[in-house]
Amino acid sequence: MPSPQGLPLAGLRIVELGHYIAAPFATRLLADLGAEVIKVEPPEGDPVRGWGSTVEGHAVWFSVHGRNKLSVTLDLKKEADKDRLRQLVRRADGLVENFRPGQLERYGLGPDALHAVNPRLIIARISGYGQDGPYRDKPAFGAIGEAMGGLRHLTANPGQADLPPPRCGVSISDDLAGMYAAMGLVSACWQVKGNPEARGRVIDVDLVSSVFSLMEGMLPEYGLFGWVRQPQGAAIKTAAPTNTYPCADGKWLCIAGNSDLIFRRLMAAIGRPEAAADPRFATNGLRCEHVAELDAMIADWTRTLPAAEAEAVLERAEVPCSRLYDMRDCAEDPHFRARDMVMPVEDPLLGRVLHPAAPFRFDGVAPRDMVRWTGPAAGAHNRHVFEELLKEGEG
Amino acid sequence: MPSPQGLPLAGLRIVELGHYIAAPFATRLLADLGAEVIKVEPPEGDPVRGWGSTVEGHAVWFSVHGRNKLSVTLDLKKEADKDRLRQLVRRADGLVENFRPGQLERYGLGPDALHAVNPRLIIARISGYGQDGPYRDKPAFGAIGEAMGGLRHLTANPGQADLPPPRCGVSISDDLAGMYAAMGLVSACWQVKGNPEARGRVIDVDLVSSVFSLMEGMLPEYGLFGWVRQPQGAAIKTAAPTNTYPCADGKWLCIAGNSDLIFRRLMAAIGRPEAAADPRFATNGLRCEHVAELDAMIADWTRTLPAAEAEAVLERAEVPCSRLYDMRDCAEDPHFRARDMVMPVEDPLLGRVLHPAAPFRFDGVAPRDMVRWTGPAAGAHNRHVFEELLKEGEG
Repeated sequence: MPSPQGLPLAGLRIVELGHYIAAPFATRLLADLGAEVIKVEPPEGDPVRGWGSTVEGHAVWFSVHGRNKLSVTLDLKKEADKDRLRQLVRRADGLVENFRPGQLERYGLGPDALHAVNPRLIIARISGYGQDGPYRDKPAFGAIGEAMGGLRHLTANPGQADLPPPRCGVSISDDLAGMYAAMGLVSACWQVKGNPEARGRVIDVDLVSSVFSLMEGMLPEYGLFGWVRQPQGAAIKTAAPTNTYPCADGKWLCIAGNSDLIFRRLMAAIGRPEAAADPRFATNGLRCEHVAELDAMIADWTRTLPAAEAEAVLERAEVPCSRLYDMRDCAEDPHFRARDMVMPVEDPLLGRVLHPAAPFRFDGVAPRDMVRWTGPAAGAHNRHVFEELLKEGEG
Repeated sequence: MPSPQGLPLAGLRIVELGHYIAAPFATRLLADLGAEVIKVEPPEGDPVRGWGSTVEGHAVWFSVHGRNKLSVTLDLKKEADKDRLRQLVRRADGLVENFRPGQLERYGLGPDALHAVNPRLIIARISGYGQDGPYRDKPAFGAIGEAMGGLRHLTANPGQADLPPPRCGVSISDDLAGMYAAMGLVSACWQVKGNPEARGRVIDVDLVSSVFSLMEGMLPEYGLFGWVRQPQGAAIKTAAPTNTYPCADGKWLCIAGNSDLIFRRLMAAIGRPEAAADPRFATNGLRCEHVAELDAMIADWTRTLPAAEAEAVLERAEVPCSRLYDMRDCAEDPHFRARDMVMPVEDPLLGRVLHPAAPFRFDGVAPRDMVRWTGPAAGAHNRHVFEELLKEGEG
């Protein structure tokens, strides 16, 4: 029985003082969940609007990155605009910001000043290194979270000296910090809801810790044994064969053939049934000892087929595998399409565009209904917000 | 003025039917935030307890992965134990599970059955591909999210045919799905709090969509222009010089020297002030055209110094940079230590271990107070939960 309750955060009011990725990503998730998000931009707009491709001056990425938000423009150096911000804060439940530490205070809009206006406000702050500590004021460029958080050391082929470990390929540290900020903020809102005595609070989220939070058991293992995990490339040391193999079309196929039963099916599928019976490959432990030989055998086969064909053969043999999807593969995939994970949306600024669904789906809400509108032009909602929403509040 | 309100989710009651990574990571975040999490394990324990190193049979990772949770053991094939689970569900606000789609239903514990016991329960379900769609029943191994979500294609050096694109190095797709499940669950809890009419609901989160959600503007750009983003290695096509450079000790240093001012400081710091004045390198656009020459110049310098020394030189010159931290670098870093991001904790099963702090900090709560206890042995709280908590509920 689907829930008739609509979007879970309908009625929650959020002010975004964000730019680039981390804070805007946090509020986009909140907006997808149904919150009212008022994005406050400088008169010239969030500089992220200058990134990537455009259609008639409108950034394509922003169609997604700014969706479901109201955009207003304010010049926070002007007293009249600070007043308007304070009006927005007065009626808000939460605020998300990612200025450099100290910048909000220099505007006279630090947590104390905001709590003077609205003592119940939940303030989520995102920064490179956090609001205190010796590195607080160091410049935090995008890749720092990956590097200092320990991820970039691992995203590499072992012993490869000629080429550097690649970046993750997306703004992973900003994304993670945005997700943690959103989660912390909703948690604090849950706490104060319905409690007239509750006060607002401040949440401090940083990029480096957000990445570091994913380092599994590596920290206690270092502390106990002095172990330092090293990169493993596309393989897993303790399982074989599982790796990523080159195909005839230059694409790659990821195959997990390491359980005994699957290993036998894999060897049969690639025309090497004798290897399935070879006592040298009888257990995962033995296969790990002979992994180079097994990987070569599998790659000899994958090199003869385009990745999609090799994938189809192994799927019929019930061997877990996936080719490495590029954006065309994602956009055209029947599962993504069937689940509306990829869906056409009308954008009044860009025309018909493809949007990804929100990354969570709720019974009773179709993924399409979670894209209420596409990213608006900077200041598109000035009139609506300042002449309607704020007046309602006075009524 | 720090908030005296303690942990934000204190009082929220969660049942975990999780194993391996995604669901247990979701509930660990909820537990760090103060929720009561009862982890239901099979009598032999969550199989993740068999991963990685151990001390006297106790998994080291589980000290972190299971912290702040209560562990009970139940055999969900037995009717008496299903009854006990239903008793836990009756008093819970939320439940997180990551069985394969259909498994919970086969136990007779699907959403309808759980809502019959507790109509207000919020159920977050995590799976590889989601609860419906053509791939629903495909085996979802760990790397699939990275591969099908589009990340693995990007985490690569361009044109590198001899070695496969490396894995991300951590269980990124499980982690992301866990974070989205936790965020969705708290949002739904916010919605029902204080509303006696509200009903429970079901949230569907999957690994592939969780990764795909980070693909920035790539989907609308493919839809509009047919563009397919290709891997960029450690460089950024539109900024120069910014890359990752080899050092004398075999480590790598990530440097972002692409703004005009920083570029001049960088060239002076590496002893090439004449390059700062070279008209061929006067703007970012020109530097992008000559990026190979610039990268070679910088690498010639970094190769003469260990990474930490090169980093110190550039930091004094105010050039943003970071060496690629391994776990020793993280554990010993003064900023991580000062912020209690790395902290010693007494684990009754393991002795003194290092824990990472929770990835969000709240005013009024010290990071140390967010580690209330370390990951317990399987079933450690059977007596407490079944003989105390459940009896209280009857009172």
